[in-house]
Amino acid sequence: MNPKPTILVTNDDGINAPGIRALIEVMTTLGDVIVVAPDSPQSAMGHAITINSTLYLNKISPENANVVEYACSGTPVDCVKLAVNEILKKKPDLCVSGINHGSNSSINVIYSGTMSAAVEAGIEGIPAIGFSLLDYTWEADFEAVKPFVQKIAQKVLTEKLPEGTILNVNFPKLPQEAIKGIKICRQAKAIWMEKFDKRQTPYGKDYYWLTGEFVNQDKGEDTDEWALQNGYVSIVPVQFDLTAYHAIQQLNSWDL
Amino acid sequence: MNPKPTILVTNDDGINAPGIRALIEVMTTLGDVIVVAPDSPQSAMGHAITINSTLYLNKISPENANVVEYACSGTPVDCVKLAVNEILKKKPDLCVSGINHGSNSSINVIYSGTMSAAVEAGIEGIPAIGFSLLDYTWEADFEAVKPFVQKIAQKVLTEKLPEGTILNVNFPKLPQEAIKGIKICRQAKAIWMEKFDKRQTPYGKDYYWLTGEFVNQDKGEDTDEWALQNGYVSIVPVQFDLTAYHAIQQLNSWDL
Repeated sequence: MNPKPTILVTNDDGINAPGIRALIEVMTTLGDVIVVAPDSPQSAMGHAITINSTLYLNKISPENANVVEYACSGTPVDCVKLAVNEILKKKPDLCVSGINHGSNSSINVIYSGTMSAAVEAGIEGIPAIGFSLLDYTWEADFEAVKPFVQKIAQKVLTEKLPEGTILNVNFPKLPQEAIKGIKICRQAKAIWMEKFDKRQTPYGKDYYWLTGEFVNQDKGEDTDEWALQNGYVSIVPVQFDLTAYHAIQQLNSWDL
Repeated sequence: MNPKPTILVTNDDGINAPGIRALIEVMTTLGDVIVVAPDSPQSAMGHAITINSTLYLNKISPENANVVEYACSGTPVDCVKLAVNEILKKKPDLCVSGINHGSNSSINVIYSGTMSAAVEAGIEGIPAIGFSLLDYTWEADFEAVKPFVQKIAQKVLTEKLPEGTILNVNFPKLPQEAIKGIKICRQAKAIWMEKFDKRQTPYGKDYYWLTGEFVNQDKGEDTDEWALQNGYVSIVPVQFDLTAYHAIQQLNSWDL
């Protein structure tokens, strides 16, 4: 009999978020789980790493717990690096990140700490999945999506992911019976229209809050946005080779 | 006669870094320059944005300066968003980021604040270039690369960049006469082998510094690493559609 797979769980909402609690619960049905997650929320951290300050790891699970948990002072990417190099000292069989409170579909993948943790694992050669639910609230209900999380993670454990890819999985905010199924998609060409909320400090100095509106002008039915709006779970295979291969020939004609 | 182009300059080493000073100097030969850059070093910030704290902009150039400069409390990506939405209130004709003190070739593009600023501009539909010199020191000498910076930026202003792409330009650390030319490349499949430097605080608590070794096992002569090691300036066209299109068919066979 095969030994149980080792599964690394992380996120960007912080180790106490309900989303990671749901993910841990599902992963314990599939393997031996280790959790290394930020000790505080790290949303929108992108692929940031900590090079100009120190990193702390605090073991927060009791000695007899069946899931070992570490809270880390760094970013989601730091968590993956520390987990692999300092705690496990080997590559886990799977790395899962999330379940994020809020969408990481379309262009959000670029800003997402959840996805960057998964991408970091992918770079290190570890099969990896980022999971996100289209509900930004702390009170988000993850019950409906647990069977899908289990099915997708099980599939990644048994099949091989295509080389150099990780999965970006987003769930619509729907009751379980209303979810129509799973679609493999491309990233919709949507953008954020920024709007800064300009205010003044009590001392008269201007400052800004970043806000914005998500605008999707990509009507393709093969996109993650279409899938989510039509009641499907979206899976986008994501790559970390950012080369725009189609552009190389054009640039070669530039006579530089 | 065409009006002079508006050029936005940013970086991740901070507004006082010698690299951005060199970039500003070159850009003033090509257009009207506005600088919005971090007020402190923001290396390795990836595509992080600031959503849980306030953002400040401080105009630091004198009233009669021919280049208007703002120092921003946020990340490189925040700088681009604030510049476009709050200062210029229009899209500049070009956004350039750097010149970074240190390489952003190969997988470094993922961690780089310099490149994320350029990618953010690209997402917003602005032609964009990130420049980096393979010299991490503050004392790095940017004289040799100025003619290349000017030539590449001029070319991007006159030609159109392929849609959805930005340029990742890296310079070898060589005297000008030793630089053999410019090569259009793909991102080498190299990785960082992490190594954490584990220490103890004066109070007995463990902490870590992230360090590592860059390992390139990609021997392709069409890569940025090959170009740089052989005395060429490397240009990689970078895309922000992260979809691994080649993987979609394989995943569709998974019966999910």
